[in-house]
Amino acid sequence: MHDLAERIQKQDMRALARAITLIENDDDQKLELMSDIFSMKKNAHYIGITGSPGAGKSSLINRLLTYIRSLDLTVAVIAVDPTSPFSGGSLLGDRTRMNQHFMDPGIFIRSMATRGSLGGLARSTKDAIRVCDAYGFDVVLVETVGVGQSELDIMKVVDTTGLVLTPNSGDVLQIFKAGIMEIADVFIINKADLPGVGKLKATLEEYLMIVQPDGWEPPIIRTVSTENQGMPELWEKMNAHYAYLYETDKGHTKRRLQLELEVYDLIREEIWREVKLSIEQDQQKRSLLDDPDVDPYQLARSWFQEWVGKGE
Amino acid sequence: MHDLAERIQKQDMRALARAITLIENDDDQKLELMSDIFSMKKNAHYIGITGSPGAGKSSLINRLLTYIRSLDLTVAVIAVDPTSPFSGGSLLGDRTRMNQHFMDPGIFIRSMATRGSLGGLARSTKDAIRVCDAYGFDVVLVETVGVGQSELDIMKVVDTTGLVLTPNSGDVLQIFKAGIMEIADVFIINKADLPGVGKLKATLEEYLMIVQPDGWEPPIIRTVSTENQGMPELWEKMNAHYAYLYETDKGHTKRRLQLELEVYDLIREEIWREVKLSIEQDQQKRSLLDDPDVDPYQLARSWFQEWVGKGE
Repeated sequence: MHDLAERIQKQDMRALARAITLIENDDDQKLELMSDIFSMKKNAHYIGITGSPGAGKSSLINRLLTYIRSLDLTVAVIAVDPTSPFSGGSLLGDRTRMNQHFMDPGIFIRSMATRGSLGGLARSTKDAIRVCDAYGFDVVLVETVGVGQSELDIMKVVDTTGLVLTPNSGDVLQIFKAGIMEIADVFIINKADLPGVGKLKATLEEYLMIVQPDGWEPPIIRTVSTENQGMPELWEKMNAHYAYLYETDKGHTKRRLQLELEVYDLIREEIWREVKLSIEQDQQKRSLLDDPDVDPYQLARSWFQEWVGKGE
Repeated sequence: MHDLAERIQKQDMRALARAITLIENDDDQKLELMSDIFSMKKNAHYIGITGSPGAGKSSLINRLLTYIRSLDLTVAVIAVDPTSPFSGGSLLGDRTRMNQHFMDPGIFIRSMATRGSLGGLARSTKDAIRVCDAYGFDVVLVETVGVGQSELDIMKVVDTTGLVLTPNSGDVLQIFKAGIMEIADVFIINKADLPGVGKLKATLEEYLMIVQPDGWEPPIIRTVSTENQGMPELWEKMNAHYAYLYETDKGHTKRRLQLELEVYDLIREEIWREVKLSIEQDQQKRSLLDDPDVDPYQLARSWFQEWVGKGE
């Protein structure tokens, strides 16, 4: 068993942090470690919280954290949104509010670096979630800004996705067009003390009427983070969705698709690591890359043929 | 020569549109077509315009288009931002303003679908840019919303990136933390008739003092799209950056890195296509994916070994 996995089993929080760093760096030992970590699976509930910058995701998560802790459950928070105070760099006020959580051993907070491009971020986030699960957290919350494609991909690796919207923000049109409505398992109308809540709710209901979800129908919850309103109902609905995933056929199908996607991603990454290394170690190939007029499509085709040809 | 390439050479706009669709669908013929397209390269200037939603990117591009056309240059616009009016789906007012361009044969407008995840979007955008270049457009403008990782990757495939910022929007902090400042070749302060321009400019100057760019120092341009102000200066600076890329050593180095990245991406994509197919056609492998408790890391490791082992 990998040394870090062993220490994580003993709830060593420094090992947990180091394992995530190893994942971020795409270390050679990663697959081996992750296989051990997978065997320590404890079925934590993986929850994603997404929404535009300014929708109040961080404040909401802050309140939700406190509520979940009051039920005596432990929580890990993984912040993928670089503008989140959970990522450690935002406004002082936010950070002060977060400090209470940093002192609580039932809470682990970690931000993921965005350097791993090309889908690598969604991949390492999933691995980091699994490590938190293996450690024994009951809930793993992932915060991301739901705008780009990689951010969308991250939402595909969690069990339950909450989409945070605010009244009168004009978010819905953008979110709808970016294909983000479809990934929501729970709609969260935050700042629900502002005018325009009724209109936003009607828009969401209209959307649900048009798409006619098959299986799980995303509920619409109103929250006011500043007033700490709506957390019990939000938590209840998220749990109901988790039960749906494990107790119904449609839920099973969703999980199977997630698994397939994950295996595909892992293999792609591994093979790519190997191929890249073989190019980097080939002086002749590297010198071809120095020609500014070289046809990249031709190079790719011939190197690819070479690689595949090895197996024929 | 590929039939579509031949027709594109004859400036058949329908062939241009079809070639981009073929790219989006990741068609089998893609590499072959793109190799032909590459041989038709005419060195158009590839320009990316990025910035938060609401920064006024589309209006700015609209004005820039008109200005570039007044110099008798032809322009292709590729919209990757799903909320852009160039993508065809935004507010009526915007669309009306765009209509003049749709009638102009010196302008081609196309939006890219975001279905190709995992870096595929940046990849197909680069290919689409190349097709527009081969067709003979003098300038190819790419509009994207600079928030997520894939959007950042897109900016790595163009020659010159303009980052659109607005005074008092609070954008800068978010953009800085998301690592987007670094990719800007030209800073564009749009809506420069609003208060707060001086402060934003000072922030950018401070940023430039800290990072001390080596080689190209990004200029700061003020524009007011609604008043059609700043276009000549913006265009001049973008051309200066293009000259820098082709006339200096530092520029050459940047282009070489782009080429390397591109070849790597292409090979990764091709190999992955092959591997995925081999899994999909393997009944035994597919049935393993039906087990909800299977260890994805183990599967990935053993299938990867099998694949690499073929070549030993």
